[in-house]
Amino acid sequence: MIVVMKRGATPQEIEHMIQRVRDLGLKPHPIYGTERTVIAAIGEKRDEHRHSLESGPGVAEVVPILAPYKVASREVKPESTVVRAGSLTVGNSYIGMIAGPCSVESEEQMLSTARAVKRAGATALRGGAFKPRTSPYSFQGLKEDGLKILAAARDETGLAVVTEVISASDVDLVAGYADVLQIGARNMQNYHLLETAGASGKPVLLKRGPSATMDELLLAAEYILNAGNPNVMLCERGIRTFEAHTRFTLPLASVPYLHERTHLPVVVDPSHGTGHASLVTPMACAAIAAGADGVIIEVHPDPETALSDGYQSLTFEQFGKAMALCRKMADAMGRQIVVREPGRG
Amino acid sequence: MIVVMKRGATPQEIEHMIQRVRDLGLKPHPIYGTERTVIAAIGEKRDEHRHSLESGPGVAEVVPILAPYKVASREVKPESTVVRAGSLTVGNSYIGMIAGPCSVESEEQMLSTARAVKRAGATALRGGAFKPRTSPYSFQGLKEDGLKILAAARDETGLAVVTEVISASDVDLVAGYADVLQIGARNMQNYHLLETAGASGKPVLLKRGPSATMDELLLAAEYILNAGNPNVMLCERGIRTFEAHTRFTLPLASVPYLHERTHLPVVVDPSHGTGHASLVTPMACAAIAAGADGVIIEVHPDPETALSDGYQSLTFEQFGKAMALCRKMADAMGRQIVVREPGRG
Amino acid sequence: MIVVMKRGATPQEIEHMIQRVRDLGLKPHPIYGTERTVIAAIGEKRDEHRHSLESGPGVAEVVPILAPYKVASREVKPESTVVRAGSLTVGNSYIGMIAGPCSVESEEQMLSTARAVKRAGATALRGGAFKPRTSPYSFQGLKEDGLKILAAARDETGLAVVTEVISASDVDLVAGYADVLQIGARNMQNYHLLETAGASGKPVLLKRGPSATMDELLLAAEYILNAGNPNVMLCERGIRTFEAHTRFTLPLASVPYLHERTHLPVVVDPSHGTGHASLVTPMACAAIAAGADGVIIEVHPDPETALSDGYQSLTFEQFGKAMALCRKMADAMGRQIVVREPGRG
Amino acid sequence: MIVVMKRGATPQEIEHMIQRVRDLGLKPHPIYGTERTVIAAIGEKRDEHRHSLESGPGVAEVVPILAPYKVASREVKPESTVVRAGSLTVGNSYIGMIAGPCSVESEEQMLSTARAVKRAGATALRGGAFKPRTSPYSFQGLKEDGLKILAAARDETGLAVVTEVISASDVDLVAGYADVLQIGARNMQNYHLLETAGASGKPVLLKRGPSATMDELLLAAEYILNAGNPNVMLCERGIRTFEAHTRFTLPLASVPYLHERTHLPVVVDPSHGTGHASLVTPMACAAIAAGADGVIIEVHPDPETALSDGYQSLTFEQFGKAMALCRKMADAMGRQIVVREPGRG
Repeated sequence: MIVVMKRGATPQEIEHMIQRVRDLGLKPHPIYGTERTVIAAIGEKRDEHRHSLESGPGVAEVVPILAPYKVASREVKPESTVVRAGSLTVGNSYIGMIAGPCSVESEEQMLSTARAVKRAGATALRGGAFKPRTSPYSFQGLKEDGLKILAAARDETGLAVVTEVISASDVDLVAGYADVLQIGARNMQNYHLLETAGASGKPVLLKRGPSATMDELLLAAEYILNAGNPNVMLCERGIRTFEAHTRFTLPLASVPYLHERTHLPVVVDPSHGTGHASLVTPMACAAIAAGADGVIIEVHPDPETALSDGYQSLTFEQFGKAMALCRKMADAMGRQIVVREPGRG
Repeated sequence: MIVVMKRGATPQEIEHMIQRVRDLGLKPHPIYGTERTVIAAIGEKRDEHRHSLESGPGVAEVVPILAPYKVASREVKPESTVVRAGSLTVGNSYIGMIAGPCSVESEEQMLSTARAVKRAGATALRGGAFKPRTSPYSFQGLKEDGLKILAAARDETGLAVVTEVISASDVDLVAGYADVLQIGARNMQNYHLLETAGASGKPVLLKRGPSATMDELLLAAEYILNAGNPNVMLCERGIRTFEAHTRFTLPLASVPYLHERTHLPVVVDPSHGTGHASLVTPMACAAIAAGADGVIIEVHPDPETALSDGYQSLTFEQFGKAMALCRKMADAMGRQIVVREPGRG
Repeated sequence: MIVVMKRGATPQEIEHMIQRVRDLGLKPHPIYGTERTVIAAIGEKRDEHRHSLESGPGVAEVVPILAPYKVASREVKPESTVVRAGSLTVGNSYIGMIAGPCSVESEEQMLSTARAVKRAGATALRGGAFKPRTSPYSFQGLKEDGLKILAAARDETGLAVVTEVISASDVDLVAGYADVLQIGARNMQNYHLLETAGASGKPVLLKRGPSATMDELLLAAEYILNAGNPNVMLCERGIRTFEAHTRFTLPLASVPYLHERTHLPVVVDPSHGTGHASLVTPMACAAIAAGADGVIIEVHPDPETALSDGYQSLTFEQFGKAMALCRKMADAMGRQIVVREPGRG
Repeated sequence: MIVVMKRGATPQEIEHMIQRVRDLGLKPHPIYGTERTVIAAIGEKRDEHRHSLESGPGVAEVVPILAPYKVASREVKPESTVVRAGSLTVGNSYIGMIAGPCSVESEEQMLSTARAVKRAGATALRGGAFKPRTSPYSFQGLKEDGLKILAAARDETGLAVVTEVISASDVDLVAGYADVLQIGARNMQNYHLLETAGASGKPVLLKRGPSATMDELLLAAEYILNAGNPNVMLCERGIRTFEAHTRFTLPLASVPYLHERTHLPVVVDPSHGTGHASLVTPMACAAIAAGADGVIIEVHPDPETALSDGYQSLTFEQFGKAMALCRKMADAMGRQIVVREPGRG
């Protein structure tokens, strides 16, 4: 890292900071510029020490040179990770299409949706049984009953089940039914949950928190990877900005940016990322054009009566059209949307 | 709520939505304007139904009239809530001053800090034993050993202990030592934790998430209040914006805004809210001038060697000066900073 | 609009506001709900009156029902506007590809770039002669000399020239050389410039300010349209958010959103929108997939020595590849990228 | 500045960048770290060259060491600038209180307001004659007639006049009547206007754009200072964030931050910064507590009928109370609010 001294830092302050760098086991390399002195610290082991140097006397700022994450970094593992879970393949030339309702509401609702999205070409099924809800007065999910319905839908359609887990104490239960554990945006920095989900051995879909930076997202992934679980999919689902015409702002440049920095696949959620059904299909197409390895879309038999997120859910017919367009995009990009036959690797 | 139809919505669509409003048990009241029709829905029970109406045919938007929170609302309880916990009183004419290190690092560090902040006039002690850290490679806290040190510091100084709990499974343990449970910004929407902390009976300091809206913060408080716990302090600690010269942006207008909407006291954290020691004292003063019911400040015997947050921690001397200024501000506002003698009510 | 009274508003306050609505020439329609009274005001002429009602006694808020813009609205003109300027066609089935350097630096630089982008398939040329620069110490452009070079490049290649005008007093001069006047993001709310550019009769490319809302962008366009100029292209070039890994955040959902609200074509600028050359091509593709009517891209013969914006400029070779991919995207979307032969309509 | 090479940058790339640094007239100082090479460039003349190096081969990023502004910097001029204009003194121990309506609407409105704010203790008068309005359908100001009314109000009350100029071509006209030229937030980067206002010789109140960084604000000030005008007041008036309960977010930490970086005085606008009359007084107090050198507040005889900004305007009575509290704050801070008698220096 680089310790930038203030203009007018005294020789004593500079000497003090050189010694501090040495105390941290790093090799100090001072450079005396025309207006300021900077001290390069060689041997840095990521940002562990950076913050403590910032409060040294005469220090203007400390600039990190290394990214703070390790295992998630493409510098460490140059080849792209491909995540496979049941019918789902995400990464490299494969684009996963995950679709289904926000919440599991009933067997009828879930099974009809599963059939419809399967028919349209989805490669996995989504549906929430444990729902984190902003308001305590909103529908909180069917819990284990919902998981059973999801499993039934998988049995019938063969589609892998992606479902959210919102508490470390539920991980075992959810992992007993799901093919992929989803960590929601609100829980991106719930480290106990990340570690427990990581230890479950199930692939994890990790959603970006609405104010998380790329480094924070990758460090959250690192908690899961460090628990011995290499199968992490990152999910861009939108950030909080001043834009009020969409529920969140969906910054698709994070897709190619993440591809440069990490080997982990990147999935995009245009449903939460826009909050309006009419904007979902254009943004699903845009996600694929930007290089996304997967798209996760909310679909409901009757959005008007959905218990949650109806305003951003596609009907079966709308989803059919979205899939047709997404397939054209994938073709143009030289990528494939395929239902995997588990067992074939 | 108000259902706003699109310009050109058909009579059938309007009739359909009138019926939908009726189906929800509300009384529809259509108003035919010059360009658009709107349907007022009378009898609304907060935003439970709002979102489902948004996906109706011909609907442009649905405008809520009521705030989504109930129990936290000043409309429901006009008099301000005063929270008392050991030496700490927060609310109404009382301003609480909570000070201490980011992390409990050692008995020596904690006790010396407790003595120093007591001497300077702090009314409660902060210190983290369980640390949620962005990076898995950062110091994660002393856990129960840290709690014991905090309790020892309380025994010696008489200052109430405010400390963070990061997992529902730790609530009992932490509540066994703490006077106030802190819910950190990352966990503001960890609903299981909110409910468990609420059920513990201990007063809760609830930090605003860096991208949470006021409604989301108040609904999170509502999870705690609904668990039967009336002693909730809200804490503004800054939001994520494009500003890069501060760690977060500290929007003090949320203090008077919250006072209008809720009876719960509002505490401000200028340490996290700025991320730079030199900005902490001015913003602590500004918080009191804006009407804050409490301030929580990071103080460390030697910020340069702190295991976390050194760059935003005050030295003992700096904290002494900050307290002197804060006291002047409180006087000018006609408010008091006092160490409560528990047992006196 | 809807005037929402506070809970507990007195009958006198309600009566007062009913009279205020009447005084504004609107028809008041009070609705007495279970918790609050709201007053619908019928005959609203956009948001002229809204703000004055907000400070009335007992008023909680005033909710507008109509969009504040008129002439730009798709409700007023349902068919999409197609803008034609020399070789450039933007809108409907036509996608314009505008390419060239950030700044005109020399005849050699400009002509070689013009030839290269023509060869790759661009349909218009960009290049700045008047440069608004954050720092007074940065290169400010060649001014009229730059305009002459641009005109020479058009003469040779046939490509229409898009160039920025930064001051109302320069409009005549710039309009004498340019095919399209660009209004930069910093000037989106420079109303005198908008009106003068509007009056020039030249098509205008209006860039969104980095913190402008959609309504503000459309109202800025309305200043130009009201000057009698129907040929306005809106340009999404990114917004300021907390994201630090890109120069701005490029929110592509604004493309389909704007298509719903306005008949004006929407161009996307992935160069400024990302600030990194490596992210430009993926975001150009994504823009087309999201439905953009045009893309504007910075290209430079040697980005490393560019006098401005080199870090986000494509080389000729990179631009060639970008065009090939964009053409695939356009094909998949059923749209065309064509060089117009002026005179053919 | 520091050129950070990518991990795996080749010796050729490193050598190329060392030569590039040399070509820019700087002295390269390469440091070969364990994972990366960085090249310090000594002799840097602010960010002129930084961006061009960013597109070099193998470059990860370029980190500036110097602030991009010069003349505004406190490093260059350590003592605080005090701006005096008629009755107004701003800076050092003096706090200026500028008050008046958003727009000049009539002689009666302006004179009555001038008398009221004078009586309450304001030290200067504000009022807009040229109004930049988001919507072309809103009231655009009385223009020169408004300036004459402002001058009449000054004649009667002795208060200095602060009024906005929105176009370079109006600077002479406005400067003929005003004591201070205000550059509004929308025009913060209208460089032609900045230079012309700078050349007028009148003190300038420069408002921060709602998405401007601190560096951008200071560079905008630098345009004015470089025109030979040392009397620049910076004005924090709020930024665009996701917060929807206030019109803008008022980040008061910019006050102490700016005091560290620049010698220019800092004024705060709590009216635009909050957008709600009820939040103005607490934030005015907070601004002074944070160290502001001035506060600018909207006051109107009858906010309910104001032609602009009524919802954020104080009544005379409210302003009287605000002044009383602000005076207490100033006292507590050891600062003074005084009406200057021009001629006394």
